[in-house]
Amino acid sequence: MKRLLAPAAVAMLFAAACSTTQQPSDGIIRTDVPERPEGQTDMIGFAADPIDTVRVGFIGLGMRGPGAVNRFAHIPGTKVVALCDLDTAGINKSQRYLTRAGRPEADVYTGSDTAWRDLVRRDDLDLVYIVTDWKNHTPIALYAMEQGKNVAIEVPAANTLEEIWDLVNTSERTRKHCMMLENCVYDFFEMNTLNMAQEGLFGEVLHAEGSYLHDLKPFWKQYWNNWRLEFNKENRGDVYPTHGFGPACQVLDIHRGDKLNTIVAMDTKAVGGPEAWKDITGEEPDSFANGDHTMSMIRTQNGKTIHIQHDVVNPRPYSRMYQVAGTKGFANKYPQPGYSFVGEQLADVVPNHEDLSGHNFISDDQRAALEEKYIHPIVREVGETAKKVGGHGGMDYIMDYRLVYCLRNGLPLDMDVYDLAEWCALAPLSRISIENNSAPVEYPDFTRGAWDKVKGFRHAKAENPKE
Amino acid sequence: MKRLLAPAAVAMLFAAACSTTQQPSDGIIRTDVPERPEGQTDMIGFAADPIDTVRVGFIGLGMRGPGAVNRFAHIPGTKVVALCDLDTAGINKSQRYLTRAGRPEADVYTGSDTAWRDLVRRDDLDLVYIVTDWKNHTPIALYAMEQGKNVAIEVPAANTLEEIWDLVNTSERTRKHCMMLENCVYDFFEMNTLNMAQEGLFGEVLHAEGSYLHDLKPFWKQYWNNWRLEFNKENRGDVYPTHGFGPACQVLDIHRGDKLNTIVAMDTKAVGGPEAWKDITGEEPDSFANGDHTMSMIRTQNGKTIHIQHDVVNPRPYSRMYQVAGTKGFANKYPQPGYSFVGEQLADVVPNHEDLSGHNFISDDQRAALEEKYIHPIVREVGETAKKVGGHGGMDYIMDYRLVYCLRNGLPLDMDVYDLAEWCALAPLSRISIENNSAPVEYPDFTRGAWDKVKGFRHAKAENPKE
Repeated sequence: MKRLLAPAAVAMLFAAACSTTQQPSDGIIRTDVPERPEGQTDMIGFAADPIDTVRVGFIGLGMRGPGAVNRFAHIPGTKVVALCDLDTAGINKSQRYLTRAGRPEADVYTGSDTAWRDLVRRDDLDLVYIVTDWKNHTPIALYAMEQGKNVAIEVPAANTLEEIWDLVNTSERTRKHCMMLENCVYDFFEMNTLNMAQEGLFGEVLHAEGSYLHDLKPFWKQYWNNWRLEFNKENRGDVYPTHGFGPACQVLDIHRGDKLNTIVAMDTKAVGGPEAWKDITGEEPDSFANGDHTMSMIRTQNGKTIHIQHDVVNPRPYSRMYQVAGTKGFANKYPQPGYSFVGEQLADVVPNHEDLSGHNFISDDQRAALEEKYIHPIVREVGETAKKVGGHGGMDYIMDYRLVYCLRNGLPLDMDVYDLAEWCALAPLSRISIENNSAPVEYPDFTRGAWDKVKGFRHAKAENPKE
Repeated sequence: MKRLLAPAAVAMLFAAACSTTQQPSDGIIRTDVPERPEGQTDMIGFAADPIDTVRVGFIGLGMRGPGAVNRFAHIPGTKVVALCDLDTAGINKSQRYLTRAGRPEADVYTGSDTAWRDLVRRDDLDLVYIVTDWKNHTPIALYAMEQGKNVAIEVPAANTLEEIWDLVNTSERTRKHCMMLENCVYDFFEMNTLNMAQEGLFGEVLHAEGSYLHDLKPFWKQYWNNWRLEFNKENRGDVYPTHGFGPACQVLDIHRGDKLNTIVAMDTKAVGGPEAWKDITGEEPDSFANGDHTMSMIRTQNGKTIHIQHDVVNPRPYSRMYQVAGTKGFANKYPQPGYSFVGEQLADVVPNHEDLSGHNFISDDQRAALEEKYIHPIVREVGETAKKVGGHGGMDYIMDYRLVYCLRNGLPLDMDVYDLAEWCALAPLSRISIENNSAPVEYPDFTRGAWDKVKGFRHAKAENPKE
């Protein structure tokens, strides 16, 4: 076996010819990890002081914003203080949601590209909730933290490693929460399965999968100025990884005792993407960077693996994949939810557990018994309300509910700035890998050494939660 | 972004310091491709002279052999001439199959480690059918071709790149068929889906998946001298890839207009493997090379991708995955078969085609209509007989039937020695990638330049086939 110009051989040749010793390369591409400024500390386990009533301002009321306002109007202990968008249609829709829920209308910020700054600078805000197009997520979040506000940012919160490091550093320096609004970690199957994993039902979880397979053909026209398809046109790599990646990282306790070490990625050529562009604009694109189907594989410090896929331009039934594979059991959400266990794992849990083997999915009856016992405590608590208020079937409500719960009770949020960083970084890191023939790329440790402080991910719980 | 010792930078540094120009490395590991000996030509489209009655000898009558004898006893135009194994139990079982089918008993070769050589040297044999443990596949096949026999070899036909190149060179030099007995390309769903792909139903196929997820816990004890688990103990990488990889390569026309270019692989640590070893031997293994879960990604010359997985030691419902993703449609076999198409693809094929979108699987009714129209001609012809004779539900019978059909009618086999080479090479190539931090490894062109001679894979068909 040889490399065309094997790095080790080159290094040795170089050393021999020039009398300089060099470590041979391990072939892994590394990105810059900025040193943590002196005096600045990590945000592991960070909790702000309890906030009695969470006063929130929303920036961006297009496709996702008004629904978020509606959810907050149904969460006790919140006050929707301000709304901002260039377009007033979403603002009006949001005000109607507030009125319908018996809440007062919010102050309005519109009419200029900098109106959002006026909103952020108010002194009666605890949380800025950012639901704009992707490009504006990080700039707004940075400004808001500098102005002393906690921030919650729609996915993906950041698109480049520079943006990610800016968010990490700004959150650490300002001691403000910086959470990404990753809703899919709160979906019912994912929550219950996470609970089973934490109870040891899968044995040691070795491998997890996630994806975003969603044919966006019917939706491309809804994005303001075609910003989303344009983003795909300009960027190679898995540009929308967090819905699949977040749940996989949670179940593997990433930066709670394990960490992401290496990523490799690969894509197909672009066919459906350019066709979508032509459909929307009427013109052939001069180029189209994003491959139709993108895959990434990530290996962790503890020898676990994650597989992530992305395709938004071809006909495939919607799938976030979500597989959890352990030494004693297996869970799979799409195309239909199923569990498999070695029998002894479910003794006293399901009927006829002695018939189980790893070769088959458990029956519907067994699954019902399993889910009754292992329903996640948070789902048991607010699942019914979540379904009524809605938002992707309820998961959006649980996400906002948890954010408010933790802020009000002075607890660490379920997702910290390092989750944001890790989940968003897949996009630029997969791009680097793909642009270098699928070379391995080191996953930066965004905690800068603090990934092992906490052992195991858990949702924080208050002793005497606020009503 | 930087590499610890970036190859390009090193090359430039070297060039600057030593005044020698070098191409910067692309980071891809390359294995040696032996030059084709002068006068030797490729086997693309190779067909032997028609054989009226295919006279076959079987070597290895353990787990898989007797079933193969039974299938041949039901295929017209064949004669089972000889049987070889060290253990006579399988020989006796095979003789009973022959008798039951009204066929004469075959000659027996047993009693020594070299008895198989005596079988191979007979001058009344057209085909040697090799069903031994993995380690003996290639040595027997090489000897048989040297003795002027066509060979059919169980999966995996070869385990190292050296073995693979030996098979390629020997087949090219001796002008003998060298086929791997990859049965899964003949399963009904795969055959029908391949037919749909060839008819253009999926548009351009961009991505395919396959896997071998099969908890072998109940089977480990059945392998003679524990050879299979020992193989896993000694070898890292996806050691059993062909069942998932074969169908994926066929649907992507590999070495029929496209070729495999690059592979990257990644595995988890070994947990279930060492546990299985302890179960079987009663002792902790000193080491265990094979990671529990292995993933590989391959990119082709035409910008398509393939994803392959392997796990044989943990509880997961059996899955060969088998996904075909195109610009107009999608197929998925496990955990349950399903198709998805943009509606216009199925106009005049299924009821209510105008309701279809890429977002949903088609209904059971629609699928029945689809499969009635697109059932593969070979399945239509012999599917019922295949189910009756059996062998993994019928696919083994179709495989043997096709092998005999092509030999008798003087046609190219469905799978040539380059299929064998490409499908088997995933094991050693994935190992190289994994042992080098998931570095990209060049997929050798086993056709040595002939991959583009034939455009599109098709099953050969005789004008007037022998009865």
